[in-house]
Amino acid sequence: MKMAILATGGTFDKEYDEIGGALYFKKTHLQEMLSMGRCRLAVRIQVVMMKDSLEMTGTDRRRILDACRACEEPRIVITHGTDTMVETARFLEGNVPGKTVVLTGAMIPYTFGSSDGLFNLGSALSFAQVLPEGVFVAMNGRFFPAGRVRKDRRRGIFVKSPDKTTGTE
Amino acid sequence: MKMAILATGGTFDKEYDEIGGALYFKKTHLQEMLSMGRCRLAVRIQVVMMKDSLEMTGTDRRRILDACRACEEPRIVITHGTDTMVETARFLEGNVPGKTVVLTGAMIPYTFGSSDGLFNLGSALSFAQVLPEGVFVAMNGRFFPAGRVRKDRRRGIFVKSPDKTTGTE
Amino acid sequence: MKMAILATGGTFDKEYDEIGGALYFKKTHLQEMLSMGRCRLAVRIQVVMMKDSLEMTGTDRRRILDACRACEEPRIVITHGTDTMVETARFLEGNVPGKTVVLTGAMIPYTFGSSDGLFNLGSALSFAQVLPEGVFVAMNGRFFPAGRVRKDRRRGIFVKSPDKTTGTE
Amino acid sequence: MKMAILATGGTFDKEYDEIGGALYFKKTHLQEMLSMGRCRLAVRIQVVMMKDSLEMTGTDRRRILDACRACEEPRIVITHGTDTMVETARFLEGNVPGKTVVLTGAMIPYTFGSSDGLFNLGSALSFAQVLPEGVFVAMNGRFFPAGRVRKDRRRGIFVKSPDKTTGTE
Repeated sequence: MKMAILATGGTFDKEYDEIGGALYFKKTHLQEMLSMGRCRLAVRIQVVMMKDSLEMTGTDRRRILDACRACEEPRIVITHGTDTMVETARFLEGNVPGKTVVLTGAMIPYTFGSSDGLFNLGSALSFAQVLPEGVFVAMNGRFFPAGRVRKDRRRGIFVKSPDKTTGTE
Repeated sequence: MKMAILATGGTFDKEYDEIGGALYFKKTHLQEMLSMGRCRLAVRIQVVMMKDSLEMTGTDRRRILDACRACEEPRIVITHGTDTMVETARFLEGNVPGKTVVLTGAMIPYTFGSSDGLFNLGSALSFAQVLPEGVFVAMNGRFFPAGRVRKDRRRGIFVKSPDKTTGTE
Repeated sequence: MKMAILATGGTFDKEYDEIGGALYFKKTHLQEMLSMGRCRLAVRIQVVMMKDSLEMTGTDRRRILDACRACEEPRIVITHGTDTMVETARFLEGNVPGKTVVLTGAMIPYTFGSSDGLFNLGSALSFAQVLPEGVFVAMNGRFFPAGRVRKDRRRGIFVKSPDKTTGTE
Repeated sequence: MKMAILATGGTFDKEYDEIGGALYFKKTHLQEMLSMGRCRLAVRIQVVMMKDSLEMTGTDRRRILDACRACEEPRIVITHGTDTMVETARFLEGNVPGKTVVLTGAMIPYTFGSSDGLFNLGSALSFAQVLPEGVFVAMNGRFFPAGRVRKDRRRGIFVKSPDKTTGTE
């Protein structure tokens, strides 16, 4: 099964700049993470952008949507900052017909050793293989349909939200 | 969704004994790994045994089967040594009605830093949530039905095997 | 031989706050690092402060000096942010009679996995055991007398500086 | 100051063979460790052999001695398995005139993440710069003259031994 991973940045791929003492983006660690996981899926990695998700604009989300539509692979994982992952998921929802799209990210940069990134990547790639057409968020070992998830910023976890249409849970 | 993880040992949970210079089992690292992955699933961890899978006997497999049947949770992940994971999967197949059972393991101990364990655990927990009733192996980012998988020992990866009944791939 | 480690903060002991996405101090990792190094020296750890060295004031340096003087141990390692380590070393120089004081730090936080902290701690503790009375900086595997060192901020390393009194190297 | 590191193997440089499930030597990690430590000493690395120290013979020790004598650098660190590090130190003692030789090793392989190797390397390189002519063991943050040290195998640490000549401590 052919799959694509679209990298957009986020904590996932941040690194520590030892000269300036701040976090920054250098390159994606996805290939290294797939090797660590001994992943043998036919995965194509595409860097769409390298952004902190708090700085993502409507134009950026449009580029992500275009990248999803342009993918030949019917199953797509998007790595994304957690702060606005839900917004991007909702932006994509209903607009990528015929494909399964799973967004994931990390609370701790992969390079920091104690990251949840490898767990989340394994999780997202797995969900993407078996979930039906649609847009999902995979975090904390769980999956959520795009319209039924929010980030609890205080606790740093993703939780189910009431259905945006009907208001029922 | 309630899930169970049954630990049986394997490379996954091996540690390096710095006095004797050999690998051994001390305790399972599953709780630590779930914390690292910021996992928020309702998971119960049960240590069934702590064995190198090359030393597993028919009696051991019977105990694993009994543990699966005794689980109240309908979705089960089993951590297992990779050398005989396929044998155990086949032993369980067809004998755990109404449940989804996913076996996983690691090529490198979790404590060694470069382990595939965290990736595999994220993957197995995800597959276990969405795959139908049956017994599966989750390794290398992929899932395989119990009867359609073998370990390629030379390359250290799991590959699809011909259907054991019909001989077709 | 009795030794003391005085912790003052710095990158050494910084951690990543996964909720806020910024670096902060929680507690010192010195005990954990000594355990990792299987260190068997009689070392007493004292947290004097937990500060980014760019925020250290004259009052802070006075407190560090007082702590050095109050130490019963004649051999002292100070963990310190690298940005103003040289300033603190010069402030202490000549004011801690009868003692060997070695300042060290890290370019990458210990918790980030790829830190130089463990190497530097091993180095500083060793230099402190054999160098004569005086104040020294131990970084990059080297040691420098307090008056003969500066940080090359662009390259992130410590280098020998001309003698501050005579101007000769 | 010019220094040499002579690699002879030992736990320090062992790796985990994920196909065979055993420990083995592939290559030395010394360059990687010096980079991690941001070491800026002028160090030349020479691989003399890659051996488990339990398998070292008199011929091997002779080769190590020859390598020490052939070094142009007057300050030498030898990485060595801990099991017979003391024997090699005694073999070298008195036979490397005009040079400071410091042996060190690790209880846990460097690649396993929780290794004492980086701490010990920082320590050994530092002792080698300031100790006088002679042969020393640097382990557990301490240094021992070659004739005054033994490994406490039960506890996995190095301790002072009675003077081999006079029997006094």
